[in-house]
Order: sequence, then C-alpha cells, then structure tokens
Amino acid sequence: MKSFASDNYSGVHPEIMEALQRANHQHMGSYGNDAFTTRAVNKFKEHFGEDIDVYFVYNGTGANTLGLSALTQSFNSVICSELAHINVDESTAPEKFTGCKLIGIPASNGKINAQQAAEKIQRLGDPHHPQARIISISQLTEYATVYSVDEIKSLSEVARQHGMFLHMDGARISNAAVSLNKSFREFTRDAGVDVLSFGGTKNGMMFGEAVIFFKKETAKQFHYIRKQGMQLHSKMRFISAQFEALLSNDLWKRNAAHANAMAKKLAEGLQAIPRVTITQPVDGNGVFAILPKEIIEPLQQEVFFYVWNERTNEVRLMCSFDTEEEEIQRFLKKIKALVSA
Amino acid sequence: MKSFASDNYSGVHPEIMEALQRANHQHMGSYGNDAFTTRAVNKFKEHFGEDIDVYFVYNGTGANTLGLSALTQSFNSVICSELAHINVDESTAPEKFTGCKLIGIPASNGKINAQQAAEKIQRLGDPHHPQARIISISQLTEYATVYSVDEIKSLSEVARQHGMFLHMDGARISNAAVSLNKSFREFTRDAGVDVLSFGGTKNGMMFGEAVIFFKKETAKQFHYIRKQGMQLHSKMRFISAQFEALLSNDLWKRNAAHANAMAKKLAEGLQAIPRVTITQPVDGNGVFAILPKEIIEPLQQEVFFYVWNERTNEVRLMCSFDTEEEEIQRFLKKIKALVSA
Amino acid sequence: MKSFASDNYSGVHPEIMEALQRANHQHMGSYGNDAFTTRAVNKFKEHFGEDIDVYFVYNGTGANTLGLSALTQSFNSVICSELAHINVDESTAPEKFTGCKLIGIPASNGKINAQQAAEKIQRLGDPHHPQARIISISQLTEYATVYSVDEIKSLSEVARQHGMFLHMDGARISNAAVSLNKSFREFTRDAGVDVLSFGGTKNGMMFGEAVIFFKKETAKQFHYIRKQGMQLHSKMRFISAQFEALLSNDLWKRNAAHANAMAKKLAEGLQAIPRVTITQPVDGNGVFAILPKEIIEPLQQEVFFYVWNERTNEVRLMCSFDTEEEEIQRFLKKIKALVSA
Amino acid sequence: MKSFASDNYSGVHPEIMEALQRANHQHMGSYGNDAFTTRAVNKFKEHFGEDIDVYFVYNGTGANTLGLSALTQSFNSVICSELAHINVDESTAPEKFTGCKLIGIPASNGKINAQQAAEKIQRLGDPHHPQARIISISQLTEYATVYSVDEIKSLSEVARQHGMFLHMDGARISNAAVSLNKSFREFTRDAGVDVLSFGGTKNGMMFGEAVIFFKKETAKQFHYIRKQGMQLHSKMRFISAQFEALLSNDLWKRNAAHANAMAKKLAEGLQAIPRVTITQPVDGNGVFAILPKEIIEPLQQEVFFYVWNERTNEVRLMCSFDTEEEEIQRFLKKIKALVSA
Repeated sequence: MKSFASDNYSGVHPEIMEALQRANHQHMGSYGNDAFTTRAVNKFKEHFGEDIDVYFVYNGTGANTLGLSALTQSFNSVICSELAHINVDESTAPEKFTGCKLIGIPASNGKINAQQAAEKIQRLGDPHHPQARIISISQLTEYATVYSVDEIKSLSEVARQHGMFLHMDGARISNAAVSLNKSFREFTRDAGVDVLSFGGTKNGMMFGEAVIFFKKETAKQFHYIRKQGMQLHSKMRFISAQFEALLSNDLWKRNAAHANAMAKKLAEGLQAIPRVTITQPVDGNGVFAILPKEIIEPLQQEVFFYVWNERTNEVRLMCSFDTEEEEIQRFLKKIKALVSA
Repeated sequence: MKSFASDNYSGVHPEIMEALQRANHQHMGSYGNDAFTTRAVNKFKEHFGEDIDVYFVYNGTGANTLGLSALTQSFNSVICSELAHINVDESTAPEKFTGCKLIGIPASNGKINAQQAAEKIQRLGDPHHPQARIISISQLTEYATVYSVDEIKSLSEVARQHGMFLHMDGARISNAAVSLNKSFREFTRDAGVDVLSFGGTKNGMMFGEAVIFFKKETAKQFHYIRKQGMQLHSKMRFISAQFEALLSNDLWKRNAAHANAMAKKLAEGLQAIPRVTITQPVDGNGVFAILPKEIIEPLQQEVFFYVWNERTNEVRLMCSFDTEEEEIQRFLKKIKALVSA
Repeated sequence: MKSFASDNYSGVHPEIMEALQRANHQHMGSYGNDAFTTRAVNKFKEHFGEDIDVYFVYNGTGANTLGLSALTQSFNSVICSELAHINVDESTAPEKFTGCKLIGIPASNGKINAQQAAEKIQRLGDPHHPQARIISISQLTEYATVYSVDEIKSLSEVARQHGMFLHMDGARISNAAVSLNKSFREFTRDAGVDVLSFGGTKNGMMFGEAVIFFKKETAKQFHYIRKQGMQLHSKMRFISAQFEALLSNDLWKRNAAHANAMAKKLAEGLQAIPRVTITQPVDGNGVFAILPKEIIEPLQQEVFFYVWNERTNEVRLMCSFDTEEEEIQRFLKKIKALVSA
Repeated sequence: MKSFASDNYSGVHPEIMEALQRANHQHMGSYGNDAFTTRAVNKFKEHFGEDIDVYFVYNGTGANTLGLSALTQSFNSVICSELAHINVDESTAPEKFTGCKLIGIPASNGKINAQQAAEKIQRLGDPHHPQARIISISQLTEYATVYSVDEIKSLSEVARQHGMFLHMDGARISNAAVSLNKSFREFTRDAGVDVLSFGGTKNGMMFGEAVIFFKKETAKQFHYIRKQGMQLHSKMRFISAQFEALLSNDLWKRNAAHANAMAKKLAEGLQAIPRVTITQPVDGNGVFAILPKEIIEPLQQEVFFYVWNERTNEVRLMCSFDTEEEEIQRFLKKIKALVSA
C-alpha cells in the first residue's frame, strides 16, 4: 500500500519514463546543448511567455538556493514564512551559499501577508543591518495552502516599493495552479513574481527542477551560478525530456488534479471521523489533521506518514499523482477502526 | 554518427535503463531510506570492503567539492594537478564551498608525483599561509592517463607524513580499473586513498556519482554536508538502482573495457596517419593528438570533438561505452582523406 | 556636551593612552610575539584562571563572528535573542563567515531563558534541518539588562544536555560584572560559558576585543581562523598594551562602575519627569525610556541619542566611562523644560 | 637594536602618536561620522583627485580581501603573482570571503607582466571555468621591487580589454611613490588602477589601511561589504586621525624615503662583502640577499630577520621609517665578521 508520507515517496509517472526512453538514443551535446532542452524551454515559454530565462537544476534545494543567490548579495536578507522549506528543511544551504540571513515570519496557515513582510523591512541603507532584498513564498505552502493571486500581488507590491524581489518556491506549483484554476502565468509572472522554482519531482518526475527568471537582467549570471552551485547536469537531455513530457498533453495538470482530488476525498472522510480535526484549508494535495495520540503509531505501522507537530499530534498526509482512491478508503477505514477501538 | 566529444555525450546503457524501470514501482522511502539504496551500498562494499561510508550525489562537481569539504576546514589548501577538473572545470565550486585554496602543479601527462606534491606543502603551522590538507588526483587523469598503484601509494605516503588526506576524483575510475587490470580496491583504499568520487555518469549512467569514505571518522558529518550542498536526491532509489546495475554482472567493466579498447583502436589508426601525433599514453578511453590545423574544423563538422589546446592544435578524442568500431574506422578514413587533400 | 548615543562615541581613557605611549618604543615581534601580549594574556588568566586561550581581535563583530565560527560547522544554527547584536547589528557577518543560521527568540527584556532556548533545539540528527550548536547571549544585553549567574547556568545546562556550546557576547562585560558585583569568572567560565567575546572598546579602549576559550579543544584552530577572518593585527602590542592597562589597577571596574552609576542617576532623574517611562531594568550603563514624541527631535538637537523604537518612541540613552554628572543634570533639565513646554 | 624582520616590527611614528592624542577629546560620531574622517578623506582627494571613494579598514588582509570582493562575484578568478601577499600570506581569506580562485603566475622578481596575465585569461563565457575578473599587483612587490608606470599601464590595458579590473595591493605604496619619484596618482589612478589598498601600518601608523575606489560604481556596496567583512571600526576617528597626519607635512614621504635610503645603504654595504649576493633590484625598503648558510643563525641571534628561501639561503632584510644608519653599519660589521670567521 502506498504511503501518505510525501509526494516524493512516489515513483515516476509512466509518460515520464517513456520520455526518458525516447531521449536515450545516440550522442547529443551535453550541458543543455541538445534539442530536448530547446524544446523543453519552449514548452515553458508557452506557459510563461517569451523573454523568460529557464535553467534546469537537480532539486528543489538547488533551485531555491541558487535562485535566491542570483538576486542577492551576501549582505542581504530574505523574508519568508517561519515554516518555509528554505528556512527549516534545506539545512543551511541558503545561508551557506548566499551568505544572507533568512527572516522567518510566524505563519499559522503557512502564508505570510504583505503587512507582515513590510514590517520586517527595516533599516534599509544601514550597513549594520542585513539589507532586505527578497520576499520568498512557497506556492503551495508547506501547509499545502495556496496564495490567491491578490495575495501574491500585494506581496510583490511591497517588494517593488522597496527595490526588492519576489521569489516563489514552486515545488508544488502544479497543485497550486489546479487549486486556483489559473494558468501558471497568472499567479507568477503576471502577479509580480521575479524568480520561480518550478517543481518537477513531486509531480511525477524522476529528478529535475527549473529556475525561471522573469526579468532578463536578473538571470545574467545564472549560467555561472548553476555550475558553481554544482547543479549543472551533463546529460541534460534527461531532465529536459522529462519537463517536455510534463508540460505536454497537460500531464502536469492531470497529475496535480488527481493528487488534489485525492486530498479532498481524504479530508472529507476525515471530517466524518470523531476526534479527528482538520487544521488547515485543503487547497492542494496535503491534509493536516490532529489525530488522537494513541492511534498515530499503530496507523503509521500500516501506512507511513509524518507527524508534523509532536506537541499537538498534528499529522501531515500527502497525496500524490499515483494515490489511489481505494487506498484512501482503506486508510480512512483503518483510522475509524483505531478511533473506535 | 556518434561524436568523440565526451563520454557524457552518450546516453544511458540499456541495462541501466532497465534498472530504472524496475525501480519504478510503488511508494518507497525517500532520501535513501529504501531497499535499492541498501543494496547499492552493499555492492560497493563487495568491491571496497566493509567499514566504508558511501553517499550518492548528483554529479562529479558535487562529489568532488563535497568530498573535499568533508576533509577540510576553510583555511586549508588542496594540492592537485594544474589540469585537474577541480582546478579548471568546476567553476569555483571548490573554493566557494570549502573556502580552501587549490594549488595547481604543472603536469605534462596529467599526473603529479610525490616530490612535486611534497614541495607544495609549505609553512605548516603558520596561520598566514593556507594549510595543506589534501592531495587530490584524478584517476583517469584529465589526459586519460592512469596512475599506477605505486604512484598512488607514494602520494598517499606524502599525505600521511604531513597529516593530510588523499582524494581521488574517479569520474573515470572504471576505465582506470580496466587499464590497470586491478580491482577498484587495490588502487584506492589499499593504496591509501581516503575519499573517492566514484563516477557513474561517464560510464553509462543517467545521473549519479558516489562519494566513498575509507575512514569512518572522515564521513561523520557528510550526511549534513550533502544536504547542505544541495546534492541529496529525494527519489534516491533512482540513483541507487543505477549503481546496483552498474556494479552487477560486471557492467562497469564491460562498458569501460569497451571504451578503452575503442580508444586503443583509434590511437592505432591515428598513428598510421602522417602529420598526426599522439601526445599522451593511451591508458584509458581518450586519445590526445595533434592534428594538422587545417583539417580540424572540417573534421569537427562531420563528427564533433573538442580542441584541447588551441595553440598546439592538440585535440581530445573521447570514446564511450557505446562507441562503435565502425565509427572509428569511418572517422579515421575521414581524417586520412582530409590529411591527403 | 557629550552625547548619550553610544559608549563608542567616547574617546580613549587617559590610562589607556599612556599605555599606548609606553608600548611605542623599539622594534618588537609582530602578530603577538611580544612581551606586551604575553603580559596581557596573563592578566586575563588572573581573572579567568589558567587553561584558557585568549586571542585579540579588532572589534566586536570580529570577536563574535570568529568565536562562533570556531565552535560550529556550516550546517549548524545559533540560538540567540531576536535583538542580539549578532542577529541585527553585524550585517550578515555571522551567516557569511560561519554559514550557520541564526535563530532569534523574541526577548522583551533582551534576555532569553532556558526553556525558550530548549524549544528551538529541534530535529537534531536530521540532515534537512539546521543543527543547533550554540546558544549565544549578550551580557549586558542589548537592552542593557544583565543575566544573573543562575540564568546563565540554566542556559549552559540546556546547551550541555544537547552537546551544544554557550557563547557570550561580552561587549559590555565589565558593566555586567559591576552590576552583578561578581568576578568575571563567576558568571562566565564558572557558569558554563564556553567562549566569550570580551569587550574593550566600549569601556575606554581605542580598539581591540578578546576572544576567550574556556575549553582548550575548542580553540585549537583559532590561530588560523583569526588570520583568515582578517582580524590578526600586525602591531599586536598596541592592542595588548591596552588590555594590560584595562585589567590593571581595576581600570575596567572603575570605568564600568562610573558608567553604570551615571545610568542610575539618569534613570532616577527621568523617573521624576512626567510622561517619561523607563521601559527596562537599569542594570548597566544604558537607560531605555519612552519620551513624549514631540520632544525627541528638539532634544536630539542638543545632545544626540538614538531612537530605539520609532513606533513606541522608546529611546536608548547610553552612559560611558567619561559621562559627567553635570551633563546628566543638564540633560534632565532640558527634558523637563521640553516636557513642560 | 632594531630588527630587519619587517616594517611592522616598528612602533608608531611620533607625529602619528600626537595625532592620536589630539583626536582623543570629547564625544564624536562613530563609524566615520566625525570630522577627522572627513578631513582624512579630503587628504586622500588632494592626492588622488575628486570622485574617489575612500574607506578605512583595519589591516592589509582586510583591505585586499574586501577590495577584491567589491569587484567580483564568487565564480570569478583573480590573476596575481605566485608570491603575492593575497596568494601566500593571507591564509585563505580571499578565497573564503570572495569565493574566487586565485591564479598565481611565477614571478622571479615579484612582478607579473601583461603577456603573462593575458595568457591566464582563458575560456571567458564558459561556465565551467573560473571567469577572470581581476589582475592584482603589489606595489612594492613582495620582493620590494617596483612596477614602472608603463608596466602598470600595460597590465591595466589587458584588464580593460577583457572587461576586468586592476587591483593594487599598496601595503608599501609610499615606498613605491618615493622609489618612482611620482605622485600617488600617476602610478595608480592615472595608470589604470581601479581599486587600491593604501597601506598605513607599515609606514608608521598603529593600525589602519584605506581602500580607494577610482570608479564610483565599483564602490556602491562597499559600505555594506566593509561591515559584513568585520572591518568597520567604531571609534573611526582614531584611524582617520592617523591618516590625516600621515598625509600631512609629507610624513608619508619622509618615512618612506628614509626607509628606502636605509635599504640602499644596506645593499651597498652588502655588495662589498664576499660570499653575499644581492638577488633583487633594491627599489624600495627591502633587500634580498643570499648569505653564507653558516652565518644566518648566528646573525639572527643578534638582529632578527627572516629567511625568505630555506633552499637557497636567501634572506629578506626590511628597513623601516625608524631604521637608523648606525644600526645598519653595526649589522654590516657583524656580517663581515661572521663571513671572515
């Protein structure tokens, strides 16, 4: 039985595997000098418009850290949610590689708002104080909630007013697009995002993320930064072919829509179970819920998932492109049984 | 027609692709908590003995930079060949991530010797001077030459005498093993190597390299360093499954032996062509040769390869696991024709 | 008239100037190989006991940043007050140089307590999360409050329990010693502090701070770290001679006692003025007070001081070794006049 | 008796000490907001022209490292002499703080030339290779030789041609000015230098160096870089007052001229002694000479100096502003006696 631990417990979507197979013929230029990469970049341009710069990297920590690096100098700071992946789940990669301070804002539903961000922008021009340069948000958030277009716009306005940039960690961007029922472009580029980590792995790829710059001048050095950051793949076609497949025939949307729908189903089922409390809006492919303490361990023995907050017995249940409805029903049944016991 | 540009112009060996397919089922623990990773690590232990620590990373620059990082503090220096990949082909990843200085030794055949290394170990204990901590060698070298076991032992002895470590960049370690007709262990662990970057990508894998520590205490923190270094893959089984396949049924050896044999054939053919001079011993899967200047560009139009030294018209011709003898014959024929023209 | 802006607006105490004059004769070994340095180190040993390691550096940011660096690896985190000098007043020197994350705890009186610190120690052993390694406190705090010996002991106990270290930013350590009426040793080494930035400049020196290690093994590499950190002075005798003077004839104590007494006088005077509220305990040489908004600017025209909190009209009034009682009376008189106006 | 070990074995020139005394009155703005700093900066403008940016720092390693940092990104390289102070005497401060690679060129007389520099500028635009960004020269060199204006101009032309900068480590710039009999400006700004470390300590100051930017746009962020680099002094007036004195009444010139003259005398004396060979042109305040091996140790017992090259018995003899002619005569006499013995 599949777990609800993480969308990265899944394997690779069959259409992605086929794309990898198709890419595996003959010799081809390395480091991105190949037709697959050109086509994959064009796919991104279909979604985000021309005049963007797209760079493929290995993973989300690389995409975020190097994206932040491109927009900062080492005396800058990055404002984000206290729960942000960059703040608590990427070791100190952002600090080590950028030199910047991360300033975390308490965010009860995973989201920060414009006013909170504005309050953290302090002492600009004072060399003693880290100079705020980026507001970074995760879309979906780490609580699997989604920022509305307006929320993003108001954050980007704060950034603009202070000569700062808006960064988006889009590890689950496809789930967000489905949730908002918007095109990628509407809630990123058009909402004022400057640089985007576009996630592939959590939505059915084997490896690979994209860093997308919406302002040409910010991307000027990324060619060098990616290599220095140990994130330039030699046999690049094998990342590119995956992205080409993901962005073709709406695979990104089918995968994300399925995962989101499964989370909805799971949430609906949980709501009907006594002593189980859903703690967050179920906007995407994750459900956060407080379970009776005594059932957590026996339940994990059956199907693994992570406890999010040991103190409150809040657990995180992630759905994936390959989560099956039957599995959800079985999981719910198990919970009911344990709760009743 | 395939190129002689680089072994990373190749695709993925079919047995590796099959392994990826086999790994693609069900949910599995991420970040290495899966059966494939356990089995792949065990495969490495079959080759290198127990009591080693093996960590999988994405690429060679990551393997080298993080491996060096594990053994150094930022005030150290690393002694290597002037031509070393870490010195001239990894941007400033080693300097940026480790803080250390790289000290390049001129190396006419790609190899440095014990005396040269010893001479660069200066002013130990003097806080004004970078403190030498590592000797790093590439096996095969960047000139596709191979260090003998004795050469490695004498370098490791110099390292040992000064409380330093010996690092090996084994991007092409399988080609070296075939060339030496030795087990991996004989010219690494048993010859005094402390940390090894074990290459997969250039020998038929899609992505993935391994960092192997032969002294437990040097690996203690690598768990953290890899994550911080943006080189921890979430769906790890897809690196592990490749390594398992590479180290099974002698795939590593078959691939490397073929590539080496092709280079030999190429070299033999080139030697018979007037105005062509082979410049380096053909120990592995690469041939370095001076070609008549006027034929280089027309030849590149047909089959791509890199000019290694613009000044001397020395070119680098790399063979791969999938280089075919017929292609070599066609290539040689083309050269003959151009030289005669 | 002197300002209440900062204790670093003061010049140099005459006894320190005399020491500098005395040190200025003949040639002497550089970088600390001189008799003045030996004597100054011995002075520190009189206060802190034998078996300590003392290194002189240029300034507080250097002392703190390099001291933290000696105890951490780049994947670590440092727990401190949100107001800590290392967190908000040293640019991103700590992040840039150590690679570590700083985790700020809200601290209404400038102090953090053991429970707060313990709560921030999370996910030890998890490579995805910054690994807590240091608790850092400022003594005096940035609010010029003082930690009691017991408060320090309970923080050091938390550190000890988790294999962490306790760091003290003692930019105003002499004021703290006077305030506590304790020897330096009682509230540092004997209370469990592992590394101490011992401040000189704010207590009458021209330049120079000391980094003191109470555990030999933590100091092993500091020789190199200081040089690499650009904090090794060539004509070292001119820092050492100052410290020798500061630690002789109780100059440190006379200076700090005077500054503390002046702050007390100032606070007493302020308490008697309507619409003025003292916001923090006056433990050391600073007074924090809310003033009527309209008097702040006219008052600053006369005698400069800093507004600490623009929102609440809280100001910071620092006294120094050379603050004169007459100046305080004049200042108070001016405030009274402005408040009445 | 004074040593010939280093110009930093000297104390502080009396006129500098007087300036420090004069600066020591009343309260004054910190971090450079004081009249002394304004006046000192103006003194520099008298020498170098308007439209320069001048920042005071603590020491030479700080001046060089932070100056390089202002002009580079971490994927750049810095071309310098193999003997450059930044390459062999500043630990790995440049690598650690800038991330850049230093590329050392063998330099038999301490100087690199335009052709050598040009040859090291390779693979511009290739993200795999460190991108050359700075040529750095020391004036005086580490061999106490001096670059002519034309030599500097031809290096700056190479830099200009490749979009690079020219950096000068002027730890002994006053000695160079005297040697060349030129104004500071003629062989720096007017010869194409972009950023200059202007040395104070080795020419009679207690502490303090200046970083001078000749192109406004390169200095834009230095305000932040200096603070982050732990090189911003709080009681800045005490650096500024020294520089004001040094640049007043030709103190810089008197000191340097004296030191240079003493070196000339020393060299003349040495030339007359059998078995002593002067190895470098005596352009400034240092003499490099090969001494009979057996006399080195006994001679060091009397008057300390450093052996520059253990292998060749080459020693370095530095003169200072306070070296006395009588001491030179005594030293020469001693050598003669030892050589005859």
